[in-house]
Amino acid sequence: MKKNVLIVGAGGVAQVVAHKCAQHNDVLCDIHIASRTVSKCEKIIASVHEKKAMKVEGKLKAHALDAMDVAATRALIEKTGSQIVINVGSAFVNMSVLSACIETGAAYIDTAIHEDPLKICETPPWYANYEWKRREECEKAGVTAVLGAGFDPGVVNAYAALAADEYFDEITDIDIIDVNAGSHGRWFSTNFDPEINFREFTGQVYSWQDNEWKSNQMFEIRKEWDLPTVGTQTTYMTGHDEVHSISQNMGIPNVRFWMGFGDRYVQVFTVLKNLGLLSEQPVTTAEGLEVVPLKVVKAVLPDPSSLAPDYTGKTCIGDLVKGKKDGKDREVFIYNVADHEEAYAEVGSQGISYTAGVPPVAAALLIAKGDWDVKKMVNVEQLPPQPFLGLLNEMGLPTRLREDEEDRALKF
Amino acid sequence: MKKNVLIVGAGGVAQVVAHKCAQHNDVLCDIHIASRTVSKCEKIIASVHEKKAMKVEGKLKAHALDAMDVAATRALIEKTGSQIVINVGSAFVNMSVLSACIETGAAYIDTAIHEDPLKICETPPWYANYEWKRREECEKAGVTAVLGAGFDPGVVNAYAALAADEYFDEITDIDIIDVNAGSHGRWFSTNFDPEINFREFTGQVYSWQDNEWKSNQMFEIRKEWDLPTVGTQTTYMTGHDEVHSISQNMGIPNVRFWMGFGDRYVQVFTVLKNLGLLSEQPVTTAEGLEVVPLKVVKAVLPDPSSLAPDYTGKTCIGDLVKGKKDGKDREVFIYNVADHEEAYAEVGSQGISYTAGVPPVAAALLIAKGDWDVKKMVNVEQLPPQPFLGLLNEMGLPTRLREDEEDRALKF
Repeated sequence: MKKNVLIVGAGGVAQVVAHKCAQHNDVLCDIHIASRTVSKCEKIIASVHEKKAMKVEGKLKAHALDAMDVAATRALIEKTGSQIVINVGSAFVNMSVLSACIETGAAYIDTAIHEDPLKICETPPWYANYEWKRREECEKAGVTAVLGAGFDPGVVNAYAALAADEYFDEITDIDIIDVNAGSHGRWFSTNFDPEINFREFTGQVYSWQDNEWKSNQMFEIRKEWDLPTVGTQTTYMTGHDEVHSISQNMGIPNVRFWMGFGDRYVQVFTVLKNLGLLSEQPVTTAEGLEVVPLKVVKAVLPDPSSLAPDYTGKTCIGDLVKGKKDGKDREVFIYNVADHEEAYAEVGSQGISYTAGVPPVAAALLIAKGDWDVKKMVNVEQLPPQPFLGLLNEMGLPTRLREDEEDRALKF
Repeated sequence: MKKNVLIVGAGGVAQVVAHKCAQHNDVLCDIHIASRTVSKCEKIIASVHEKKAMKVEGKLKAHALDAMDVAATRALIEKTGSQIVINVGSAFVNMSVLSACIETGAAYIDTAIHEDPLKICETPPWYANYEWKRREECEKAGVTAVLGAGFDPGVVNAYAALAADEYFDEITDIDIIDVNAGSHGRWFSTNFDPEINFREFTGQVYSWQDNEWKSNQMFEIRKEWDLPTVGTQTTYMTGHDEVHSISQNMGIPNVRFWMGFGDRYVQVFTVLKNLGLLSEQPVTTAEGLEVVPLKVVKAVLPDPSSLAPDYTGKTCIGDLVKGKKDGKDREVFIYNVADHEEAYAEVGSQGISYTAGVPPVAAALLIAKGDWDVKKMVNVEQLPPQPFLGLLNEMGLPTRLREDEEDRALKF
């Protein structure tokens, strides 16, 4: 039984992680939160206490940490006796936090692929660029590393595994659809760190089709879907971590990712990108000041964590899976609908952070209990999905399945 | 006969001014160009020599000058023996350059109202905010100061005066229409300094209607016009310097300004403004760097002076004047059409800079010869328009008049 959790990061997702860890601190024991800015950790801790989220009395502590610093991260893991690290910090710190876990034997969980701060947009094969190069190292050290254990990647990978386990003999297509049909009431805002958000879309868009990578322009391929609860929604094909891992680990010939974007997002993105304001490369103003345009865009946009109180509406994220069962064509949509206002009432965050922050805590619980403590590096689709989805049913992210006219809750 | 000209500024308009001064250096004598960045002046001088623009052999010299520094400006006027100063520098230096002219007795010409760098958008009464407060000071010193002697303000003011002189007994309405129907081939660019360009439109929009100021939102009032040569064009009501001076100096009850904008401009402007990227107020990035968003926008946009080689198409700027003549209703459109490619061939600049840069040189010639050397501060509509428009006919900006079905060149 692994115990004591170190949460790396103190953004919107970290807040959800902290609340959910607190709600399960009878299993997870001491909870530590570390970020460069310790006051952000303290704010999260205050919010946990305000909601009286701690299930049992226990430790909940803030720490200042530069997670790019492996030695410092290792020291904090050792000092806090943390056996599980949930990394929801910037995408730039994945490799250093993983190194610290390997050195200390702590289990590692993250929610998105590593990114190099100097690259605008990593190109496929995503997990093979950094994470998978360290599979052997993890196995040798007996370290459990669960990659991409947020919602997407994460829960959608478990949906894929569930589909293969229970609903299909052969899967030909997985279309992962991620729609936020909520409204934050601002003229424009990204739902998470603008620097990360825009980076996702500034490069080429990659999909896995007919067993190979296909590249398109961002906003080139548009598709409308009729989704449960949220109705007809416009999405665009984009690249996403799990397109890589699911296609490779499960041998599925077509894996595509579709992200919902409103007209306002497309309008803003188009202007900023074409003007060069999403650039990571510094420009020099007439006054001689060197500045990265994207960092200025981030500075003028609303802080995504400030959106939560006003957020209304729902998200719908799921896998549309096509293939064969018992020789017949089959198509199912496995999905979750989350509500922004409910998320805020429970953990003080909006629904996007909620869907991303609850699953890594479910993963931590499964590692703590042993079910997922596999002592090697895995993606979520390589783990049994039922215990994970079962926990999520109880933790606020219930799974449903729509097939033809039927739409039902799944039990595990 | 006044002689020797000091040009303040080294942007796109200054280049046109330098070429046109050189073409008339038999009258204007020594030509000096001063800017903070002396290399920009030298580049302009090289372009003048390349086009062999000097009419007679003579002096053409570059100087480094911070035109906010009155003493330095005064010293340069004295050192160069300049009796005419053409100020086409940033709108922020008008008052300091004017001070230097008053101290030295040099004539002063500018092309736009003074602006305070700390104010986003000056509100009416524009000329009364800074310039007109110094009328007495100019008269006492016997200093000629011709305000707003570009195209608009400038030539359009002369069109108004011409209409009152020759075509109307009573004017009720002047609609000044400024359309650039040219194309620079870039995804987006402003035609002059983005910092000045956007500042014009970030505040409220003022017009003079029924003898009082009326305020609207930018892009609130749209109007299409069927114009000579360039055809049907979309414009939006905006504020502009000459709406103030023409309405006050000529006692006209309705003066409005209409600027042509393409859909792309409206799209870009809307996004940048709503995100706060046109702000003059510094923001602080996550890294702690303090930066003015508008200056970053300027840094990523094309340098307007780089557009000239690719610019095609024409501009059309003029006054639609309504009123009575001999007891009957009358409506005339007095206008100029300029061609981007012709401007580039002649002076190495695009048409917008050309229309703004030729008129102040015509004004300088009239001051040099005495016709406009009025020894006080005036706006262009207070001066005889015929010699000015006559010179412009020869200098590349001929005046035409459209009335009913007739459309003819005007001679002076």
